[in-house]
Amino acid sequence: MSALKIIRVGVIGAGRIGKIHAENLATRIPGVKVMAIADVNLAAAQELADKLGIPHVYSDYRKIMDDPEIDAVAICSSTNTHARLMVEAAEAKKHIFCEKPVDHDLGKIDAALKAVAAAGVKCQIGFNRRFDPNFRKVRDMVAAGKIGRLHMLRITSRDPAPPSPEYAKVSGGMFLDMTIHDFDMARYLSGSEVIEVYAAGTVLVDPLIGEAGDIDTAIITLKFENGAIGTIDNSRKAVYGYDQRVEVFGSGGMVGVSNNMPDSHVYSNADGVFSAKPLYFFLERYMDSFIAELREFIEAIQQDKPTPVSAPDGLKPVLIAMAARKSMDEHRPVLLSEITEAALQVA
Amino acid sequence: MSALKIIRVGVIGAGRIGKIHAENLATRIPGVKVMAIADVNLAAAQELADKLGIPHVYSDYRKIMDDPEIDAVAICSSTNTHARLMVEAAEAKKHIFCEKPVDHDLGKIDAALKAVAAAGVKCQIGFNRRFDPNFRKVRDMVAAGKIGRLHMLRITSRDPAPPSPEYAKVSGGMFLDMTIHDFDMARYLSGSEVIEVYAAGTVLVDPLIGEAGDIDTAIITLKFENGAIGTIDNSRKAVYGYDQRVEVFGSGGMVGVSNNMPDSHVYSNADGVFSAKPLYFFLERYMDSFIAELREFIEAIQQDKPTPVSAPDGLKPVLIAMAARKSMDEHRPVLLSEITEAALQVA
Amino acid sequence: MSALKIIRVGVIGAGRIGKIHAENLATRIPGVKVMAIADVNLAAAQELADKLGIPHVYSDYRKIMDDPEIDAVAICSSTNTHARLMVEAAEAKKHIFCEKPVDHDLGKIDAALKAVAAAGVKCQIGFNRRFDPNFRKVRDMVAAGKIGRLHMLRITSRDPAPPSPEYAKVSGGMFLDMTIHDFDMARYLSGSEVIEVYAAGTVLVDPLIGEAGDIDTAIITLKFENGAIGTIDNSRKAVYGYDQRVEVFGSGGMVGVSNNMPDSHVYSNADGVFSAKPLYFFLERYMDSFIAELREFIEAIQQDKPTPVSAPDGLKPVLIAMAARKSMDEHRPVLLSEITEAALQVA
Amino acid sequence: MSALKIIRVGVIGAGRIGKIHAENLATRIPGVKVMAIADVNLAAAQELADKLGIPHVYSDYRKIMDDPEIDAVAICSSTNTHARLMVEAAEAKKHIFCEKPVDHDLGKIDAALKAVAAAGVKCQIGFNRRFDPNFRKVRDMVAAGKIGRLHMLRITSRDPAPPSPEYAKVSGGMFLDMTIHDFDMARYLSGSEVIEVYAAGTVLVDPLIGEAGDIDTAIITLKFENGAIGTIDNSRKAVYGYDQRVEVFGSGGMVGVSNNMPDSHVYSNADGVFSAKPLYFFLERYMDSFIAELREFIEAIQQDKPTPVSAPDGLKPVLIAMAARKSMDEHRPVLLSEITEAALQVA
Repeated sequence: MSALKIIRVGVIGAGRIGKIHAENLATRIPGVKVMAIADVNLAAAQELADKLGIPHVYSDYRKIMDDPEIDAVAICSSTNTHARLMVEAAEAKKHIFCEKPVDHDLGKIDAALKAVAAAGVKCQIGFNRRFDPNFRKVRDMVAAGKIGRLHMLRITSRDPAPPSPEYAKVSGGMFLDMTIHDFDMARYLSGSEVIEVYAAGTVLVDPLIGEAGDIDTAIITLKFENGAIGTIDNSRKAVYGYDQRVEVFGSGGMVGVSNNMPDSHVYSNADGVFSAKPLYFFLERYMDSFIAELREFIEAIQQDKPTPVSAPDGLKPVLIAMAARKSMDEHRPVLLSEITEAALQVA
Repeated sequence: MSALKIIRVGVIGAGRIGKIHAENLATRIPGVKVMAIADVNLAAAQELADKLGIPHVYSDYRKIMDDPEIDAVAICSSTNTHARLMVEAAEAKKHIFCEKPVDHDLGKIDAALKAVAAAGVKCQIGFNRRFDPNFRKVRDMVAAGKIGRLHMLRITSRDPAPPSPEYAKVSGGMFLDMTIHDFDMARYLSGSEVIEVYAAGTVLVDPLIGEAGDIDTAIITLKFENGAIGTIDNSRKAVYGYDQRVEVFGSGGMVGVSNNMPDSHVYSNADGVFSAKPLYFFLERYMDSFIAELREFIEAIQQDKPTPVSAPDGLKPVLIAMAARKSMDEHRPVLLSEITEAALQVA
Repeated sequence: MSALKIIRVGVIGAGRIGKIHAENLATRIPGVKVMAIADVNLAAAQELADKLGIPHVYSDYRKIMDDPEIDAVAICSSTNTHARLMVEAAEAKKHIFCEKPVDHDLGKIDAALKAVAAAGVKCQIGFNRRFDPNFRKVRDMVAAGKIGRLHMLRITSRDPAPPSPEYAKVSGGMFLDMTIHDFDMARYLSGSEVIEVYAAGTVLVDPLIGEAGDIDTAIITLKFENGAIGTIDNSRKAVYGYDQRVEVFGSGGMVGVSNNMPDSHVYSNADGVFSAKPLYFFLERYMDSFIAELREFIEAIQQDKPTPVSAPDGLKPVLIAMAARKSMDEHRPVLLSEITEAALQVA
Repeated sequence: MSALKIIRVGVIGAGRIGKIHAENLATRIPGVKVMAIADVNLAAAQELADKLGIPHVYSDYRKIMDDPEIDAVAICSSTNTHARLMVEAAEAKKHIFCEKPVDHDLGKIDAALKAVAAAGVKCQIGFNRRFDPNFRKVRDMVAAGKIGRLHMLRITSRDPAPPSPEYAKVSGGMFLDMTIHDFDMARYLSGSEVIEVYAAGTVLVDPLIGEAGDIDTAIITLKFENGAIGTIDNSRKAVYGYDQRVEVFGSGGMVGVSNNMPDSHVYSNADGVFSAKPLYFFLERYMDSFIAELREFIEAIQQDKPTPVSAPDGLKPVLIAMAARKSMDEHRPVLLSEITEAALQVA
């Protein structure tokens, strides 16, 4: 291990997720040196740099792109900049860790993927849930044939609290900002591609979300290339906390995982039996997976291995989300090929 | 209680379910006297009568209809006779307990319902799962407002072993012979009517079932009158046994129930942690509910109360099953009103 | 099965447990005819006979002993009559089912056991918990070697509500009226004999129980002939209901069972996660085992097999209870042999 | 937070636990600078220093004691040096974090406690389990009155694999090297002092441990000052992994915690239902608590608060362990006062 190259990283974006990744890179992942952080909000970048001992602080991310000492960038800026920064980073021969989603525009995603492929740099998209020990265990058991042939897959994914209706307007909608994780999980667990989507969505949590053109409650049916079928249920608001469960069922058995709790206490009194609520939200629930995804990204660079979530893995869930939206709008099942063909015609 | 009238019952059909109901009526339900049993297979009826001390045995069920001492009949014969026997029993002023489904033909169901209504007799359809303590607890909590407004409902219903392909040909198909219980459960738990169905069905368990024109694996999306949405997943074969779970989710919380096990043992050794499989099939899983449904039927007669599963409750799940089949065949969501309007046009 | 002899039973005692056994024998166990019931409270006996269709009702139990048509008696009278009735029944050549405990006096137990042995009748003591599916599963796994060599055994046994202090005075105390079941369970699960007892008992539930000379909370350490050690913890009052758990641990693993619940619902809301309390008390928790113990008693007679709980099985837990009391009184571990030797010296 | 003083720490001992504490101090706890590490095995110290960037490396720990820049020491050397190093550190006015146990000799412990008190330095003993989220939750609920008055306490503590018989000879025996954690936990959870101990110990895991004069299996009964009673069961070898559970029971209810698992997967197939084994041993199970105990130690220094585990907290479990050994040797319950009085007479 000691012979491994130290990877020098620049972090772009010092917002919520940028802070998490910067701190994990700086303190919890061996073999990394965070060299620089950039944010248009220079104060935020400076504060983070002070706390973590990051030597360089910029308001202009191009300083990072231009620094020949930097091996890799972590793109943690707003979604609408992801694809462009990926292109720039690829052209600067930096390895790329990029938060999801890559973009809402298939043309921009395509350009980013082409740039990455042309540059031959490592690229990993931030689908962190793949690194959660529970989901990874399920995936591993499916891949090992423990459930035989996959028949059905079930994902429950419910947030503890809805975003503001303003966010719904810019996020691309629930399918693109929230369900996109579940679409990735469906591909990850099944080891197969989604070929058709039927989405039933409705507004039951907050009418303002509906007025903003989005939904807050959905049940989605998936058909996979391997013949299996699946269902995802989503809500923007589970009052008991973040609900993140999956279950796979096949010819040889079933495997499922339950929510993570802060402790295992069970309390019995005259009124009943009580236990803890699930961990509140993604920061609590997925902190270990945020660390693990970056550890594997760094190892992929050091050991010249493929990254565990490739650049094309960033495209597929966007396609499924688009098909889901089209299905809901047109009130019919939609083939994934309809989305890609439409994109080709545009292009 | 001692002043309550003894209800005299005639049982029609001495097959598998007839045996269960006859034995429960004869030995486990107070206030009942089983007076007669009829089956075209007289030997089967005689054997049951001998075991349970039933005084009269007939090959012709009309003897039961004609017996003025008999207050109520339990119709346990083959599905294609249910509607006709309901009409005859209603005309003979017998109270009626009838196994599900009432029929596969909407016209015959309509005739049976009209006869029951005209005669003013009590009528209960054998949707036994409503009497299961787990599902009843969920229904009661929903009805009591414990989960606030209902947003989503989830039913998992998987058999341990598929029927013969021959059975699939005569049963009306999976939606009518198996999912029909889940359609009833969806109405029971939600306290609302299903207005639209989208069904994705496939053949993954046994290709002969597919050759017989049926499916063995399905995911169904439901929309309810009250705005909620729901999903049912079905398989004809869960190798780990009978899988019967429900979960409801609303603005105020969630309640779900898990499978029933033969015991609560947990065994830990060097290989892992092990526990029992679910109870094998409906006879083991739902025996208590078979007893409870008849107890409540008898009480409804004795106390002149409405039965807990009415004759129209026998119609609705058939309509949903037909919509599910149409949805799968036409690969689109189907409104329940399409089924009822089509039936009216035929009539 | 049809060739098996019908066993004619007389029930002595129409109190709480007599009612249970009479009803189970009359309605839930094949191959039995309850011929007679006797109680000094004739009205109670008559009421039970009317309900269950028992032909003969007596205030004097000797009428049952004298009836040559009766094959077996169920002794459900007060504890101080058990041993005497066993002797009389044995002399009358009736098979004997006797509630626990046999007696509090070793001399009387000895006489009862000798009478049973001399008469060659079947005799079963009412340690019903051996017939509970959970505990039987644990016992079977121990016996099958699943946990390797037994090292430790743990029994938690807590009642939902204390008896009246008056009861404590006549019951022989907590070890003899409540823990006696746990002492039997310790022998049953381990397949070995207890050779030493250390009991720490105290009064924490109700000071009046202390004033009556008894305790309401205890932790007992057992040493077994096979080298294993065990612990029992008892309380007269668990506010959350009847707590009945066991766990065995050995060189090859561990197996434990949890409490029985009325349903499996899990309810999550903004305050936490909630589930049902254990079934309230022994009538709810052990109803199935009350039926099973009598079924096996009847089968032992019909098939001329040993009963699953022998007359000597009635003696051993009394010895352990006496050792526990002596240990607590003398504040030291007590060998079982001290109790038996003391009894011999008295005799 | 930024105004808080950086605490400069010297680590004494670069063995297994020294490595853990050094790494946690250096990388996971804010506000700490590890200045030096000392070990007679200089190579081990150097390797750790290189990995963690610790500036000073010594074979002689006195260099740490003499360094005026060092605020606190972490004593991670062998048990027989703990008390002496505590005295030296106190005299050098260093704050002290010391691994358990303080010593096996009451006189030496007394001297160490006096030196700490005289110097007025902070001192914390390494009973890390107090910082486990599960056990802390139970303690907090007891302290908050959630279970009413404490009646009974139950601790299960079983290691996955026995130490070498050689270790048993020098460790002071199972009660002093393993159960000592449980004795501390009993005090922590109950908020009360143990006043009497009865210990039943035996050799069932490895006869060589018996030949070395120790035991490997034990059940211990505790009496507390507040009137409660408790039981601890220990084994040196649980084949299914590290078994660490507690349960408290009182007038108002019960609270218990179960083992920690690597994931929550549940796998059902034709053979049964399977889940993961507990985390293997203390490094996996208690890593978070090792971090938390040092974080609170550092905070106690920074904020001049009492440490959460005081120097006298290091004495009490040793007394209980001695009483347990005496109880086993003399085959009788032993009062804690017997141990302290005997110590006074020696002194």
